[in-house]
Amino acid sequence: MSPNPPLFASDRRSSSSHSEERAAAEDTALLGNQRKDNSSPQQKSRFWREIGLFAWALIATAAVIVLAVYSQHQGSSGDGKKTSPKGKKNLIFMVSDGMGPASLSMTRSFRQFQSGLPIDDVLVLDQHFIGSSRTRSSNSLVTDSAAGATAFSCGMKSYNGAISKLPDHSSCGTVLEAAKRAGYMTGLVVTTSITDATPACFASHVDTRAEEDLIAQQEVGEHPLGRMVDLIFGGGRCHFLPNTTSESCRGDGRDITKLAREKYGWNYIDNRKDFDGIRSGSAVKLPLLGLFARYNFPYEDSDKGFFLMIEGSRIDHAGHGNDPAAQVNEVLAYDKAFASVLEFLDRSKTESVLVSTSDHETGGLSIARQLDPTYPEYLWYPEVLNNVSSTAEHSARRLASYVAAGSKNVESFIRKELVKKGLGIKDATDAEIKTIIAAPNSYSFASMISRRAQIGWSTHGHSAVDVNIYGTAGSERLNGNHENTEVGKFLRDYLDLNVDAITKELNEKEKAKSASTEETIRPLVEMHSMPDGIDDEL
Amino acid sequence: MSPNPPLFASDRRSSSSHSEERAAAEDTALLGNQRKDNSSPQQKSRFWREIGLFAWALIATAAVIVLAVYSQHQGSSGDGKKTSPKGKKNLIFMVSDGMGPASLSMTRSFRQFQSGLPIDDVLVLDQHFIGSSRTRSSNSLVTDSAAGATAFSCGMKSYNGAISKLPDHSSCGTVLEAAKRAGYMTGLVVTTSITDATPACFASHVDTRAEEDLIAQQEVGEHPLGRMVDLIFGGGRCHFLPNTTSESCRGDGRDITKLAREKYGWNYIDNRKDFDGIRSGSAVKLPLLGLFARYNFPYEDSDKGFFLMIEGSRIDHAGHGNDPAAQVNEVLAYDKAFASVLEFLDRSKTESVLVSTSDHETGGLSIARQLDPTYPEYLWYPEVLNNVSSTAEHSARRLASYVAAGSKNVESFIRKELVKKGLGIKDATDAEIKTIIAAPNSYSFASMISRRAQIGWSTHGHSAVDVNIYGTAGSERLNGNHENTEVGKFLRDYLDLNVDAITKELNEKEKAKSASTEETIRPLVEMHSMPDGIDDEL
Repeated sequence: MSPNPPLFASDRRSSSSHSEERAAAEDTALLGNQRKDNSSPQQKSRFWREIGLFAWALIATAAVIVLAVYSQHQGSSGDGKKTSPKGKKNLIFMVSDGMGPASLSMTRSFRQFQSGLPIDDVLVLDQHFIGSSRTRSSNSLVTDSAAGATAFSCGMKSYNGAISKLPDHSSCGTVLEAAKRAGYMTGLVVTTSITDATPACFASHVDTRAEEDLIAQQEVGEHPLGRMVDLIFGGGRCHFLPNTTSESCRGDGRDITKLAREKYGWNYIDNRKDFDGIRSGSAVKLPLLGLFARYNFPYEDSDKGFFLMIEGSRIDHAGHGNDPAAQVNEVLAYDKAFASVLEFLDRSKTESVLVSTSDHETGGLSIARQLDPTYPEYLWYPEVLNNVSSTAEHSARRLASYVAAGSKNVESFIRKELVKKGLGIKDATDAEIKTIIAAPNSYSFASMISRRAQIGWSTHGHSAVDVNIYGTAGSERLNGNHENTEVGKFLRDYLDLNVDAITKELNEKEKAKSASTEETIRPLVEMHSMPDGIDDEL
Repeated sequence: MSPNPPLFASDRRSSSSHSEERAAAEDTALLGNQRKDNSSPQQKSRFWREIGLFAWALIATAAVIVLAVYSQHQGSSGDGKKTSPKGKKNLIFMVSDGMGPASLSMTRSFRQFQSGLPIDDVLVLDQHFIGSSRTRSSNSLVTDSAAGATAFSCGMKSYNGAISKLPDHSSCGTVLEAAKRAGYMTGLVVTTSITDATPACFASHVDTRAEEDLIAQQEVGEHPLGRMVDLIFGGGRCHFLPNTTSESCRGDGRDITKLAREKYGWNYIDNRKDFDGIRSGSAVKLPLLGLFARYNFPYEDSDKGFFLMIEGSRIDHAGHGNDPAAQVNEVLAYDKAFASVLEFLDRSKTESVLVSTSDHETGGLSIARQLDPTYPEYLWYPEVLNNVSSTAEHSARRLASYVAAGSKNVESFIRKELVKKGLGIKDATDAEIKTIIAAPNSYSFASMISRRAQIGWSTHGHSAVDVNIYGTAGSERLNGNHENTEVGKFLRDYLDLNVDAITKELNEKEKAKSASTEETIRPLVEMHSMPDGIDDEL
């Protein structure tokens, strides 16, 4: 990484030919609509910590409650002995979007520093490391999340942008769809928009990830095969709301939450209070956009077990933003979620496997950064990350609010509130403050953190390094180095699913529908304008 | 990585306080003394390819011949059946100095491109991936090669610069020493100087890696425990020659090759012809500095098997130089060496294990690089690396020779010979040519390659990312994520060695010697001037 100030890009991405869609889509952040609140900068000052805790609570609670409540309805032997109901299996697949090998090394050392742990203390993930996954897509050595998730969902390589579509634009059946058809309960839990590429690939089929309106429809049940998902926890409500409402980012006036409730029987909750209610086992409530299968989840019985996909989506966002302080906290949250699932599995009487991997690395993260052109130092500074109490993303948002409110003394606000208090940086240079004023985006803040921690980044996009695979007993087939499609094939084989039959059915139904309606062919790239408050979040 | 021209450092490192020793020492390159030849630039133009092939030939041949010749002297069952002589074991430990996870991803894709292979084609190494190693040293989150190798040789964490010395500066016994004492044959094969940190850690004990004169002496037998090594293949002859000769880089007039021959019975060969002779099984000859144990290697019998350490040292040098074209070729050579050892193991009747890992990552390599500040591209270009026929290092050397010879038209020489022909770059900008003229070092050339391939680097030093572990059947204990010291402990346990007894003996003998000679305490950092032709090689 250059010792000179690195890439400062405007928050709104330029419309370059073939990266626009991806870059914009990768940026979709957790709880996009919650970000629109008008609370004062002061109220927001430690917002990111809450978000981090909340993301963790969301994932862990969702996973544990869903599985536990479901599980208690199964035949219990009553003697406390772990017995597996015959043929019943649970499969939990966790995706750490954008987490590369360097993310782990950085987070482990950060945690040791932060908590005063010995130098051989490791993350829970480290203890379950079994292999690595090769991530390239069918049309690029560097994948995007869509092609990455299609490899997992369909077990096939496809092009960047593909949502469970193959290079010839035919649909490929997914492990979730096949699991549903085979009688398993199915769930998707993410810390970003539920219409984002990773969850989308398990329960929808569209030519390009930008078609989020269509993804939302398919996820709730307007899908060639009907409703395939029993449980959805995630953000991204705007694609479910009609464009006659202020929170909408849909291109049409359809209310997908209404469609979900009235036609497909979902129990819809959309606030934190309701979610907390679920956590404590009472009424169905939540703080995110949540789409819920009232009649199927979680009290319906099944003799098949379940398939649940959990994505830790914000690691990727920290990578896109080149923010090491945000990343270590997101990886720690993911590690806790992983541990929480492990804990459930330990108590479960059902044969279960947990597999976790990443779709790709984001940011080209290096745990070293040469600041002096004449020599490299062999060290980095975790304490710099520990001093940060406001992510770069949140700092940029606070600055925008401050300026928008017409407040005076912007430079002093940047220097004292954002940099000194927020980033914990006491030695900001005049040049750095000027850079923030000239380019008041998250990158300007993140760069100050990375340089002082001596952490390097090579891009705001993805990189091609192999990513780690973690797994519990039963996932030995994934030991060693694998193509990402082999992860997908493991998932289907573990549940003994016939995904090819799903592909065939999908293709037949899509063909029939296409013939009957003579609908015009959807353009390959159908960009929707991004919702307010999304573009400026990285 | 910044889109602006990255780090251009003068070839001669500045004397910064605590990185000087390491940076200089890490730069020691293969065949340092061979680099002084005065052949014309024309003759040298494809020198690097030869070096690459030669390094590979050196490693592979050394490993295979040593093991094969040794093996044939063992009791053969004659019926072609693989039977393991009771209690006999061979352990081959390969170190890929500076190779991180991204090195593999890059090299694999490069090879697919270069050889027109399918996108799921993998390296031999990939097929034996079993785990990862955490590399931090006792005093830094980013290790150097000395502390890294001490973790392997002694199974203990120590400070950067330590050559099998602990943080209290007492010596720790090594797996090689314990193996020798237990009756095993022992060998060290490297593609850099044999007095470099990695090989040094297996057969010597000094406070800091810069004490290469002392390391040379200990390696041949002037060691507290006597001669410990049976076979040495490597470069770095200058530390074995008296400073009365032109090739020497010793601080004194001692001839260590003579000491080795006359006092410790080594068979000394120092040229390619002799080495080729060994390869074809005739007389003892070689093209590198080679120190050879005439009476013990390879015709002596042993009922214990052997311990051999093989280091692919030049991957690290390509990382320090931030040269992706040099790195992919070095990783491919290492992969071939690994395959060659595997082949031997397949034929061997003796129980054997091959373990391969890195001491650390070098360069902060990322397989992605954002050149446009406004958007990241999701791709990189292996074809750029394939167009390179002269490493950045060699290009800088050719330029230096050209200028030193007083030749005219330097700019044209750079543009046509070095950049267009050597680097295969046809679109060099005037600014880039000017940069080379202003900073005529390898970094200027390497940067042109990396930018066009869209490969990122964050430092010319090391980084803290976990590195991969590869192993054959029998190395299952190293599955998963491990501290690098656990690799060292595996080595000793596999051969059932008592390393603690060696440590005790070392400490007693060193104490006795210290008391008897009342020698003054060696300064902790004792820098020797680097030999000519070394400093300017990165």
